[in-house]
Amino acid sequence: MDNKENTYQQLQSHFNKIGELENIAEIAYWDEATMMPEGSGEARGKSLATLSGVIHELKTDIKIRDWLLESEGNNSLDLWQKANVFEIRRIFDECSAIPVDLTEKLEERSFQSEQAWRRCRSANDWTSMLPLLSGLIELVREKAQILGEIKNTEPYDALLDQYEPGVTSESIEGEFDKLKRFLPDFLEDVLTIQKLNKPTPLLGPFEIAKQRELGIQVMASMGFDFDKGRLDVSHHPFCGGTPDDTRITTRYNEDGFEESLMGVIHETGHALYEQGLPSLWRNQPVGLARSMAMHESQSLLMEMQACRSEEFLTFLTPFIQEKFGAGLGETNAQLNVQNIRLLYRKVEKGLIRVDADEVTYPLHVILRFEIERDLINGKIEVQDIPGVWDQKMFEYLGANTEGNYQDGCLQDVHWPSGLFGYFPSYTIGAMTAAQLFRTATNSNLSIMTSLAAGDFTPLVGWLKEHIHSRGSSVSFDQLLIDATGEPLNSDHFINHLKARYQNDT
Amino acid sequence: MDNKENTYQQLQSHFNKIGELENIAEIAYWDEATMMPEGSGEARGKSLATLSGVIHELKTDIKIRDWLLESEGNNSLDLWQKANVFEIRRIFDECSAIPVDLTEKLEERSFQSEQAWRRCRSANDWTSMLPLLSGLIELVREKAQILGEIKNTEPYDALLDQYEPGVTSESIEGEFDKLKRFLPDFLEDVLTIQKLNKPTPLLGPFEIAKQRELGIQVMASMGFDFDKGRLDVSHHPFCGGTPDDTRITTRYNEDGFEESLMGVIHETGHALYEQGLPSLWRNQPVGLARSMAMHESQSLLMEMQACRSEEFLTFLTPFIQEKFGAGLGETNAQLNVQNIRLLYRKVEKGLIRVDADEVTYPLHVILRFEIERDLINGKIEVQDIPGVWDQKMFEYLGANTEGNYQDGCLQDVHWPSGLFGYFPSYTIGAMTAAQLFRTATNSNLSIMTSLAAGDFTPLVGWLKEHIHSRGSSVSFDQLLIDATGEPLNSDHFINHLKARYQNDT
Repeated sequence: MDNKENTYQQLQSHFNKIGELENIAEIAYWDEATMMPEGSGEARGKSLATLSGVIHELKTDIKIRDWLLESEGNNSLDLWQKANVFEIRRIFDECSAIPVDLTEKLEERSFQSEQAWRRCRSANDWTSMLPLLSGLIELVREKAQILGEIKNTEPYDALLDQYEPGVTSESIEGEFDKLKRFLPDFLEDVLTIQKLNKPTPLLGPFEIAKQRELGIQVMASMGFDFDKGRLDVSHHPFCGGTPDDTRITTRYNEDGFEESLMGVIHETGHALYEQGLPSLWRNQPVGLARSMAMHESQSLLMEMQACRSEEFLTFLTPFIQEKFGAGLGETNAQLNVQNIRLLYRKVEKGLIRVDADEVTYPLHVILRFEIERDLINGKIEVQDIPGVWDQKMFEYLGANTEGNYQDGCLQDVHWPSGLFGYFPSYTIGAMTAAQLFRTATNSNLSIMTSLAAGDFTPLVGWLKEHIHSRGSSVSFDQLLIDATGEPLNSDHFINHLKARYQNDT
Repeated sequence: MDNKENTYQQLQSHFNKIGELENIAEIAYWDEATMMPEGSGEARGKSLATLSGVIHELKTDIKIRDWLLESEGNNSLDLWQKANVFEIRRIFDECSAIPVDLTEKLEERSFQSEQAWRRCRSANDWTSMLPLLSGLIELVREKAQILGEIKNTEPYDALLDQYEPGVTSESIEGEFDKLKRFLPDFLEDVLTIQKLNKPTPLLGPFEIAKQRELGIQVMASMGFDFDKGRLDVSHHPFCGGTPDDTRITTRYNEDGFEESLMGVIHETGHALYEQGLPSLWRNQPVGLARSMAMHESQSLLMEMQACRSEEFLTFLTPFIQEKFGAGLGETNAQLNVQNIRLLYRKVEKGLIRVDADEVTYPLHVILRFEIERDLINGKIEVQDIPGVWDQKMFEYLGANTEGNYQDGCLQDVHWPSGLFGYFPSYTIGAMTAAQLFRTATNSNLSIMTSLAAGDFTPLVGWLKEHIHSRGSSVSFDQLLIDATGEPLNSDHFINHLKARYQNDT
């Protein structure tokens, strides 16, 4: 082994250590959300902060600088090793750029502001939130400025880049504009069509143990590896843990199974990505999922594309009937394919993003993207948010949010907790999902016939080959081009909506 | 703040970091035993090893040496701070003394030997175990030698000191000899008495959900803080987690509730110690539980002294009847106080330590202590173990284990996993429990009357004041002298056995 190779090995071994510690942190976060007794939160917070600190110290270790310089000049590295060096450079530069005292101030202010938000949202109190959010924004702008300088981008793009490496707001805007032109009129058409054919609301109760059984059945069909993963309950559903121990959660409601079931499918989409990551590159940056949007594309591909398809819903309905039909008497009537499909494809103009359907969701996201971009780039100030929100909400969804902060600009935890640049990932993910699903089903006709038989093998096989197993070995754009032949193109998403909702019966 | 105080603060802050990381490790260990899917074991093992490595690096950080020297010469520190420095010195010297390659070799060999033990035990195969155990012993002796030199003790005492700081084999032998003289004849007497009055075996099934409910009721009466703790299931019951998030486990068997219920009580005794540790000294070595034996004294005090008392069993029985009586028909007859007491006080000569009752348990421990002491000090070799075991087993319990390795010297995981010096803690704990309970009930007469009403407040209050809240601020001996007026004295344990078993009806 020559010296340069040795240097690369040191880099890899250092990041293996970081990856192992992050695995432990992931389990502790999962535990906090699912198992931890309430009174232990403060102590857990401190312990996790200490572990984060240790991980941060390791990521900014000055030795990395030399290892990187030597590895970047090492032509004997293979493609994966080079991609790993590339990812490590990104992590090192980003972590090293932000001064420790700024990070600490950001953590402190975010914590205060998020705590205040819980009160302010339920009290519809924008006035108290304003100064806290303004203070926080100053710090976030400072961070965005610093990152923008090293990345040579606008401040907002530097934040976006943290979640979507290589994606710029310019590239997003092009696709978002197409959606803005298409969606509002389309939405009105869909609402008109759906008025003629409304679903019968479900009449529970639906036993939680049975909902869980059904969820586990579906997860197993989808190919979730229960030997290396679990399903549990948490207040906010998520996919956590590690590729070797993937933990998804859901929440149950006795009045209806449909949200929990589709939630399980969504999180299983995330989990399959984690479980399909390249095991040879475990714990290395190049072995991680590509980006937030690519992750969301995997969950939305399952939730919106595959599992709301006519084929899969037709397969699924008898299982729903078997679980919940017997003994519910009249309820059986609601559990036919027609009604299940109407329930799962219902479109509504609502004020709340997390309750939105796939037609309106992008409008909620575009609204937030435009506001946070202008906010971080200094074109508007925090006090302008409610006005801009109201105006855009009216423009995109015809809704009135004036004075209704709790269902307006105070509805999301993201901004009060210092998270800016994250919202676009949801809709980039939705567009990516449509594009991938279109290509997959076109290139392998057995995918849809298999879904009709509850068999996900061909679909997951395609995703594993084209997305999961590639980790972060290439950029988001390249991954999408390699898989589908073109970069991100919202036409596929638009075509998907047209096909599904204009003919819906 | 002068410089020396500043130095002490640095030491404390460094060990706070270590404590926080150990908290996270504890939760990950708990998760491994209770929640982790089977296929994730290998990855978890690596991640935990990495975290252990980071903690070890921090404990042996060369900066500690100077901080310690300055702090040891700092007369302005208060008693707790001084005790903290004393504990840190012990940890630093111990961790620094063992060369990294010896630790790694020990971990590797222990892992191999423990893996082999699982096969060898069930195959009754001593021959295959012999070379592995011999190889391991060489390494353990090397470690004991090194520790003995820095602690100025016999090699075995240096290992013992890891679990029971300040306790020597000489001091144990005195008390163990009294037990050896007393127990064999006493055991025969008890068996003769018990022949006249045998318990009616329980006839199940006993629903597991109800067993869990009953366990939780008892935990709550005992004062377990569910806002900072949980009860779960694992293959081997244990008390894990942290003082702010204490996790106990049990295992259920539908054929009988008595083992699980008493197991929950035992682990709750451990948990109350953790939850009662001084919160002002959280994460500092001085704030931790005093020793393994003191920990075991807290669980055995609850399990053997308080909860097998006539008073508590009389209180408990109606709750057992309420849970399991209705609908079981004839079973009601078995669930009277008389039978419950006979069940919980049954004494038997058995070959297996973990199944032993409080009368025979010390003999199992003394046998192991004598063997491992001579083994580590080089007076016998691994091939001598079966012979010595058979001879002592016959002498102490009149039992024949010749050729029966799986119920003899291969029954415990301790030695194959490299754990030597731990066994005495069980019986030191039993003796300590009797001594503490005797003092507590003599000094506060309301303890027994309260137990008769299911109220543990006076008992736990006494334990919290005299044991829990003192952490590791004084030595084991001093803690016992402060609490009971004398050092460890097995007479109290012997008197307890006489009182309970010679008059048992």
